[in-house]
Amino acid sequence: MRKTLLLLFVSWCSLSFADEGMWTLDDFPFDLVQQRHKVSVSRETIQKAMLSSVRLAQGCSGSFVSPDGLVMTNHHCVSSCLAQISKPGEDLLKVGFYAREPIDEKVCANFEIEQLVEIKDVTSRVKEATKGLAGADFAKKKKEEIARIEKECSTSNDVKCEVITLYHGAKYHLYRYRRYNDVRLVFAPEADVAFFGGDPDNFMFPRFDLDVAFLRVYEGGKPLKAKDYFSVRTEPVGDGEVVFVTGHPGRTQRLYTKAQVEFLRDRLFPLFMWLLGEMRQLLLGLLERCDDAERPLVQNDLFFVENSLKAYRGMHLTFAEKRFMEDKTEWEKQLIASAEDKQTVQKALDDIAFSQKVFSDILEEYLLLEGRFSMVSKVLVWARHIVRWSEERKKPNEERLSEYTDAELPSLKEGLFANIPAGKKLEEAKIAFYLSKIREVLGSEHEVSKALLQGKTPEEVAKEVVEGTRLFDADVRKKMFEEGYEGTQDPATEIALHLDRAARAVRQRYEDEVEAKVNVGQDVIASVYFKNTNRRVYPDATFTLRITFGKVAGYREKGRWIAPFTDIKGLFEKATGNPPYALPERWLMAKEKLNGDALLNFASTCDIVGGNSGSPVFDKDAKVVGVVFDGNFQSLGGNFWFDEEVNRAVAVSIEAIVEALKGVYGADRLVRELVGQGKGKR
Amino acid sequence: MRKTLLLLFVSWCSLSFADEGMWTLDDFPFDLVQQRHKVSVSRETIQKAMLSSVRLAQGCSGSFVSPDGLVMTNHHCVSSCLAQISKPGEDLLKVGFYAREPIDEKVCANFEIEQLVEIKDVTSRVKEATKGLAGADFAKKKKEEIARIEKECSTSNDVKCEVITLYHGAKYHLYRYRRYNDVRLVFAPEADVAFFGGDPDNFMFPRFDLDVAFLRVYEGGKPLKAKDYFSVRTEPVGDGEVVFVTGHPGRTQRLYTKAQVEFLRDRLFPLFMWLLGEMRQLLLGLLERCDDAERPLVQNDLFFVENSLKAYRGMHLTFAEKRFMEDKTEWEKQLIASAEDKQTVQKALDDIAFSQKVFSDILEEYLLLEGRFSMVSKVLVWARHIVRWSEERKKPNEERLSEYTDAELPSLKEGLFANIPAGKKLEEAKIAFYLSKIREVLGSEHEVSKALLQGKTPEEVAKEVVEGTRLFDADVRKKMFEEGYEGTQDPATEIALHLDRAARAVRQRYEDEVEAKVNVGQDVIASVYFKNTNRRVYPDATFTLRITFGKVAGYREKGRWIAPFTDIKGLFEKATGNPPYALPERWLMAKEKLNGDALLNFASTCDIVGGNSGSPVFDKDAKVVGVVFDGNFQSLGGNFWFDEEVNRAVAVSIEAIVEALKGVYGADRLVRELVGQGKGKR
Repeated sequence: MRKTLLLLFVSWCSLSFADEGMWTLDDFPFDLVQQRHKVSVSRETIQKAMLSSVRLAQGCSGSFVSPDGLVMTNHHCVSSCLAQISKPGEDLLKVGFYAREPIDEKVCANFEIEQLVEIKDVTSRVKEATKGLAGADFAKKKKEEIARIEKECSTSNDVKCEVITLYHGAKYHLYRYRRYNDVRLVFAPEADVAFFGGDPDNFMFPRFDLDVAFLRVYEGGKPLKAKDYFSVRTEPVGDGEVVFVTGHPGRTQRLYTKAQVEFLRDRLFPLFMWLLGEMRQLLLGLLERCDDAERPLVQNDLFFVENSLKAYRGMHLTFAEKRFMEDKTEWEKQLIASAEDKQTVQKALDDIAFSQKVFSDILEEYLLLEGRFSMVSKVLVWARHIVRWSEERKKPNEERLSEYTDAELPSLKEGLFANIPAGKKLEEAKIAFYLSKIREVLGSEHEVSKALLQGKTPEEVAKEVVEGTRLFDADVRKKMFEEGYEGTQDPATEIALHLDRAARAVRQRYEDEVEAKVNVGQDVIASVYFKNTNRRVYPDATFTLRITFGKVAGYREKGRWIAPFTDIKGLFEKATGNPPYALPERWLMAKEKLNGDALLNFASTCDIVGGNSGSPVFDKDAKVVGVVFDGNFQSLGGNFWFDEEVNRAVAVSIEAIVEALKGVYGADRLVRELVGQGKGKR
Repeated sequence: MRKTLLLLFVSWCSLSFADEGMWTLDDFPFDLVQQRHKVSVSRETIQKAMLSSVRLAQGCSGSFVSPDGLVMTNHHCVSSCLAQISKPGEDLLKVGFYAREPIDEKVCANFEIEQLVEIKDVTSRVKEATKGLAGADFAKKKKEEIARIEKECSTSNDVKCEVITLYHGAKYHLYRYRRYNDVRLVFAPEADVAFFGGDPDNFMFPRFDLDVAFLRVYEGGKPLKAKDYFSVRTEPVGDGEVVFVTGHPGRTQRLYTKAQVEFLRDRLFPLFMWLLGEMRQLLLGLLERCDDAERPLVQNDLFFVENSLKAYRGMHLTFAEKRFMEDKTEWEKQLIASAEDKQTVQKALDDIAFSQKVFSDILEEYLLLEGRFSMVSKVLVWARHIVRWSEERKKPNEERLSEYTDAELPSLKEGLFANIPAGKKLEEAKIAFYLSKIREVLGSEHEVSKALLQGKTPEEVAKEVVEGTRLFDADVRKKMFEEGYEGTQDPATEIALHLDRAARAVRQRYEDEVEAKVNVGQDVIASVYFKNTNRRVYPDATFTLRITFGKVAGYREKGRWIAPFTDIKGLFEKATGNPPYALPERWLMAKEKLNGDALLNFASTCDIVGGNSGSPVFDKDAKVVGVVFDGNFQSLGGNFWFDEEVNRAVAVSIEAIVEALKGVYGADRLVRELVGQGKGKR
C-alpha cells in the first residue's frame, strides 16, 4: 500500500531518465512520450485528466469515473470510513459494504475530496516579497507572503488554495482546488480480498488484490454533476502497452545531498523501524483483548503501522546499496565541477551537512515532542490543537504556526470537529506507549518526562487521561477549540500544555537550524544544477497532482523473470483458507461464475510513490484501465532514485473490478454506472 | 546490564591508549600501570585474581569471595535461576531470596561455573597442522586440530578445555577450566532494588541499583573449599583511586574494517533493533494475559530483550559519529601506507568488503534460520539439537558442527537435559512470532515459509507444536537426544527438520564465504598491523578471562559534570513508589536504620563490555570493593572503540551491599562469611 508516508522532507527536483518523472499537469513532456513510446497525447487529454483526478485529504488519490460524482480509489483509502460507519457489533472492514440503493450510501464523516481546477504561477510575487533576505528572515517573509496569497484566493469554504514550492523555490505555483466535504461510501469489498496476502505480501509482486473502493461526491445533498470524468475500459491492458497515471505522490527526496541521505540511513530510519515495530506488536496485543467495537479501529491503526514499517524497511535497504551511495558521491563531485563558483556550492553542501548534524542532535526530541511520534494518540492530537489554537488565534495570520493559518484552518477544523470514533482502550494503550517512549528515549531525568509523569507510571497517566478527558465528544472539542479550554482542567489538554513549551522550542530549532539551512543550501545547489543540465527536469513530489507515463512490463528478480500480470484463477490458487490468504465466503461461492482468466493485477514502469494510492491508470485515449494500489518492494527506494529495471507500479485491473462487481457482489447499479446498461450485462 | 550480547563476530586485537585494554592474565601490563598510575602490582596478585575469578556459562562473570565457595555476581546473572526455583504462585524475582540456613540454599539447575586454572600456548601445534593451507581447507584443518587439542585436555567431566584464538590467529591458547555444576543460590535481592529504574535507567548514570547476588559452589554435596578467593573491603573507593576488574568481556570488534562496520550500521543493527523492538512489545502484551506461573519466565525474557535492544541502540549511535568513521577510514589508509606489500593489504580489505556484501545478501536467511533469531523459542532450540545430533553423531569429532564436538557436548547436554521450565503460552507466542517473521522477511513464496506453514497460520502451527510436543519434559529430551527422535512424530522436531536443510546451507555459506574470508583477510591485516606498531597490544575480547585497570572518575555529558558516586539516600530520593522506581516495602521500613551516605554505585574508567557483568572490582591489594553491573550509555560504543573521556564502567559498592545485607535483609550469616564476625556487627 502506498499511502503517503509522513516524511519530513522538503521538495526537490530531478532530471528525467527513461520512464522516470512525476510531471506537473502544466508541464507535460509531450515530446518525451512521443520520443520514447511513439504516442502523441493532446493538450485536451491532459486537461481532462487534471479535472478528472482528485485528491483525498487523508493522503490518497482518486478519479471521477461517472457523470454522477462517482470516485474510484483504493479500499485502503476508505478503511477509516469503514471503521467509522460500522455499527456496534458490525465490522464493515471485514464484511465490505455496498449501497444497493442511492439512499444506502453512507457519509464518511471527515473525508474531503479536492479537485485541482487551476494552476497559477506566483513565483514573482514570492520572490519580490523575499528579495535580498536570507535565513530565518527569508523563511518568515516567505511564509507570510504565501499565507497572504492563499488567503486572497480562498474566497469561500468550497475553495482551497495552496502555494506549492516547486524545484526547491525556483518556482512557486498557486494550486486552486474545489473542495468537496460531503463524501459518501458506495462500495468497498471485504478486507480479505482487498488486502489478500496481508502484510506478508504487501509491497510484493506477483500480487492478487482487489484493492478498490467507490465513493460519491455530493453537493447540496445530491450526487455531484461532474463535467469531467474518466470513462472506463474493461478490455485488459497488454504487455508493453503505454499507460499513464495521475495522482498525488507524497514526497520524494531524489536530489538529497549525501549528508541528508546519511542522516536518514544512520539516524531517522533505524529509529522509525524500531518504533514502528514496537507499535505493531502493541496493536497486535491489543487486538487480542479489545472488544468488538474497538477491533476495527485497532485494525485500521495496525494496517498503517505495518504498511509504514515495510516501506521504511524497503527504503532503508536502498542505502545499503553501494551503487546508490556511490552515485550520490559522484553527483556531488560533478555538481562542484560544473559550477563556476565552486566555493559557494561546497559551502552549500557543508551547510546542509551541518544542519543534518543539528537534526541528529535534536532528532529524538523532535520526533517525540513535535514530529511523527508525537501524533500516535488522537486524543492528544486534538488536545494539542485546542491548546495551541488558544495561543495562535491571538497572532496575525502570517505569524501563526503553518497549520493554523487561515488557509489551513478549514481542513483542521473539519478533522477536529468530525464525529470520529476513538477507542478508549486503544487511546489508553497508545498514550501509555507514547509516555513510556518519552521516558525511555529522552531519559527519566528529562524535564518533559518529569512534567508528564510526575512520579506516576505511563499506564497510570494514560488511564487518568482517557477516563477524565471529555475530548472523545466532538461537540466538546468544537466548544473547547472555539471558546477556549482554560479552566476545563481536562487531563488531555493538561498533557498537551506540559508538552507545548518544549515542543515549540524544538520545532523552532528544527525550522531555523535545519529546515531553513537546508532550504538555503538547496537553493544554491538547485540553481547550479538546473543551470548546468539541459535535460528535461521535473520537481520532486509535493503531494500535489502529477502525471507519469510508462509501459506495462515485467522485471527480473534474483535471476527469475516476473511477468507483469496476475489473474483471478491465480487468486483462487493462492487461497489456503487461512488469513491472510482466506477468501470471503462470497468469493468461494462465486468461483465458478467468474472468468478465471480476467486480468487481476498488473505492473507498469510508471514512476509513483506513496500518495499515489487510488490513482487512475489510463490509456492513450484517457480510458481508465486500472487503479494503482501499490508498488513492488524494489519500488520503495523510489523516494530516492528511479531504477527502471525493477521499480514497478502495481494496479488493480478494471476488468477484474467489473467482473467482481457483477459476479461476486451483484452490484448491478454500480456496474451500470461504470460501464453503461449494455456492457453491464454478461 | 551488560550480559553478553550474542554477536556473531570473530576476535581481533587492539592497541593500548590510556586505560584502554582487556589484557589476558598471562600478559598483564605491569609497566603501563606503573607508568600511568604509579602503582606496582605483583605477579602473585595477578595469579590470585585469576584463580579467584569465575565465569558463569550463561554469559556472566563472578568471583569467589569466601573460603567456602561463595561466589559474588549480579542479580541479573541469576534471574533465570530465580525464575526456575520459584514455586507456583511464588515470584522470587520480585520478592528476592535469602537462604537463612545452609540447608535453604537452592540448586540452580543449569548453572555452570568455570574457574580458569591454566593457560597454555598451543600456537605451534595449530600452525603446524594448518601449514600451507588457505580458505575452507585452512578452516577445516584448524577446526579439526583444535577439536583434537581440546579433547586430549578434557580428561574428565570436571575439566573444560577451550582453544582460544587470540590476536586473530597470531596466537592460540589452550584455556583449561575447572567446571562446577552444583551451583546454589544463597542470596538475591528484590528485582525492584536490583534493577531500580528498570529499562528507562538501564545503561544510564547516575544510577542507584543493588544489582548483586551470591551463589555457592558445591562439590560432593558440600560447599567447595576454595583455596583462592578475594577478601572484601567495606571502606568505599575514593575519587581517582586506581582499581582493577577481572571478568569475561564477550566480544569486541575494535579493529573491524570499515566495510565490516558499515555492514553493522546499514544492515545488521537496524534489523536487530526492529526485531528486538517487536519482541519487547510481544512480551509486554503477553505479561498482561499470562498466568502467574509464567509471569517470571516472560519477565526474564523481557529483561534480556530490553537490555539487548538498548545496547544495540547505543552501539548503533556510535556509527553516526562522524569522528568514529573518519578514524576508521584513516586507520585503513595508514595500514596500507605502513605495509611493505601494499597490494596484499588492499586485497585483504577488498576481500573482507566483498565478504560483507555476501553477508548482506544472506543476512535475513542467516539470522532467521541459523543465527540469533532462529533461537527465540526454547522448544525449537531443543528440537534442533535433537534433530542435528542424530546426524552429527555419525560423523568423526573433527567434522561435526562446532557445538557437537566432544569438547562442547557436556555443556550442550547439561543445558538440554536440565529441568528448565518453559512456559507454554510464552513458547506458543514466540513460535508464532518466529514463523510470522520467516514469512514476512523471507516472503510467503520462500521454500521454508511454505514447508513450515503448509497453508496454516503461524498461530495455528505454534499451537499445534506446543500442544503436541513432548519436549517440555526434560526426560523426553534426554531420551530423544540419546536414542533418536525418528518415528516420534513430535511436531517440534518436525519443524526443526523442515528448517534444517536450508539452515545448514546458509550456515555453510556464512562459514565459507563470510567467516573464512574475513579470517583470511584479517590475518593479513593483523600481521601488518602488529609488525608496524610498537605499542603494547591486547587481543579483542573472546568471552575469556581478562583484566583491566583504571581509576574511579566522573565525566562530562552535554556540558554537565557527572560525579562518579551515588549513595543510598539518593536511592530513597528517587523512589516515587511507582515502578520502576518503587522500592520494596522492606527497604522503606529499613530506611532509618541505613547509612544514607553509604556509597551505592560508582563509575570507573575500566575498559569493560558485555560479559563483564558480575566482575569483581578490586583495589591494588586485591581487596574487592565492588561488583560491575553496567556501563553508561557512552560505554556501549566500547565494542568498537574506547573513549576514555566518557566511557565508564558502573559497579555496586561493597559498602552498600554489606549495609543492605545487615540493615534490610538481616542476612547475618552471609555478612559474617563476607566480612568476618567482628566487622559484621555495626
